[in-house]
Amino acid sequence: MENKPKFAVIGGGSWATAIAKMLCENQEQIAWYMRSTYALEHLKHQKHNPNYLSSVAFDVNKLLLTNDINEAVKFADIVIFAIPSAFLSGELEKMNEKLDGKKVFSAIKGIVPETSMIVGEHFHKTYSIPYENIGVITGPCHAEEVAMERLSYLTIACSDKQTAKYVAKNVSSYYIKAKITDDIIGTEYAAVLKNIYSIAAGIAHGLGYGDNFQAVLMSNAIREMKRFIKQVHKMKRNINNSAYLGDLLVTGYSVFSRNRMFGNMIGKGYTVKSAQMEMSMVAEGYYAVKSAYKLNQLYQAKTPIIDAVYQVLYEGKEAKEVFKKLTDKLN
Amino acid sequence: MENKPKFAVIGGGSWATAIAKMLCENQEQIAWYMRSTYALEHLKHQKHNPNYLSSVAFDVNKLLLTNDINEAVKFADIVIFAIPSAFLSGELEKMNEKLDGKKVFSAIKGIVPETSMIVGEHFHKTYSIPYENIGVITGPCHAEEVAMERLSYLTIACSDKQTAKYVAKNVSSYYIKAKITDDIIGTEYAAVLKNIYSIAAGIAHGLGYGDNFQAVLMSNAIREMKRFIKQVHKMKRNINNSAYLGDLLVTGYSVFSRNRMFGNMIGKGYTVKSAQMEMSMVAEGYYAVKSAYKLNQLYQAKTPIIDAVYQVLYEGKEAKEVFKKLTDKLN
Repeated sequence: MENKPKFAVIGGGSWATAIAKMLCENQEQIAWYMRSTYALEHLKHQKHNPNYLSSVAFDVNKLLLTNDINEAVKFADIVIFAIPSAFLSGELEKMNEKLDGKKVFSAIKGIVPETSMIVGEHFHKTYSIPYENIGVITGPCHAEEVAMERLSYLTIACSDKQTAKYVAKNVSSYYIKAKITDDIIGTEYAAVLKNIYSIAAGIAHGLGYGDNFQAVLMSNAIREMKRFIKQVHKMKRNINNSAYLGDLLVTGYSVFSRNRMFGNMIGKGYTVKSAQMEMSMVAEGYYAVKSAYKLNQLYQAKTPIIDAVYQVLYEGKEAKEVFKKLTDKLN
Repeated sequence: MENKPKFAVIGGGSWATAIAKMLCENQEQIAWYMRSTYALEHLKHQKHNPNYLSSVAFDVNKLLLTNDINEAVKFADIVIFAIPSAFLSGELEKMNEKLDGKKVFSAIKGIVPETSMIVGEHFHKTYSIPYENIGVITGPCHAEEVAMERLSYLTIACSDKQTAKYVAKNVSSYYIKAKITDDIIGTEYAAVLKNIYSIAAGIAHGLGYGDNFQAVLMSNAIREMKRFIKQVHKMKRNINNSAYLGDLLVTGYSVFSRNRMFGNMIGKGYTVKSAQMEMSMVAEGYYAVKSAYKLNQLYQAKTPIIDAVYQVLYEGKEAKEVFKKLTDKLN
């Protein structure tokens, strides 16, 4: 890594746009890859991403905008992936530029459907990226509030402390505070699991459960998350830190969360298929719950909420019945 | 205590009304004391409390309605106090019926202003009630959702397990699940502290902070609550259980919470006095933060959120400045 490592952002969605904005507060130039040539052209000439966080004005001189992922990767020492997990494999197939020696950060918050792995693990096992070159950028953070420059806290996870610090410094500004951790597995799982719990919150809401139940659900969810992550990667962590509990809350209580919206439709009686067709965006939790459920066949953590969401989404069971049984398992 | 101990509910507010409703699901008769003769007469003839949860219909044959606190206390083996903490001393002065041998439960969630003690402690020290006769009824639970019979979970705290179980059984129904604990000090402090954090959430909202910050605030609040309660009464407890974290969340995320509303007004620029005048109901957190702050002079737990709310409400400091400094202490 050079003295002043350079960044590439991979993705054109709202979270990618938010990260590009944060980096532009500190970097002279960043590479930014997205598939849509329309969005790229619009960005170049109108200085706004037409599709996501369109209120954010960019200094285009700072942007190396490209629809060639190899160009972006080649430019950078630190490559930040911020695309839906379902599209990751497809994008990586286009990539012939080597990631060797580069730092690979995941801002994806999802499970790679093809391998059922979290993104860091996927890069490690499929692309032989050593763990010290892998990092995670996590919230609690709605991209929309970054656009509005409302104070937000990020957690940068990387076992290489220098890199963690460097990334933290370069996303920080008067509206972003970033802290670091070495828990790359735990923070990424937290970011993945919270989407499942957000679907559960949505299902409960759709079924007519109220705020009292939602509080109990979230209180049980954080305990379940702790048990699950402890099985996957045991280390000393405070599950109530912002990267775990905060991230769960910002999603679980957000009426704008795609996952919660998706769950809400299921609770209201939509089939999984029709709920998916109604939504133009991907609900990461849909893939996450399948992987988490399967993984837990091995780990055997007590995960009644994950189990319930799995039964509803993948076993065709009635949400109403499943959640009635779930209420007896919570406390 | 007799074989089938009888209950009295002290208070005519929404939480007292909710508790009366829960008990009527299981008891043949309960005593219910409230000050307002108008409300009592209305209840007797119209079967509804005219002022709070007025949608709830009562079987008045089950209610021994009285505006004489002594009559209610005399009737009961278990006396549940559910009035604002600021009115407790005044009510207790009217009482000449002895509490000896009776179980005294607090559903108050506030600090007794005259003694700066939580209610259980106040009864213990001022009325020599032994701790095994003291209990706490706590949420997470908005009374309004009890009225709507939406599934809610209560925690019944009492060091006498038999009593805890008996109370839990008698508030339970198809819409109430109750669990028991022996942590009378911790659950009551949690119920008190959450109101302070709810004021903090309101102030932040009033100042323009968003959902990302709210998640960080709550994540820090539960860690702060844990540190504080550990100092006051060290025992093995999972702070993420519903009685602690759940109770914090239901209040901290509720737009209907009086404490949050009060904080919101402060954040928007109201003075403490004008915010109090605007509100017809008592914000328990206002008294709680003073006691908690003073108490913590002794305990010295790290409590940046309590300190910030105290500075704004009692030291006349600018909310904007205080919260800007607070943001540097959170993570």
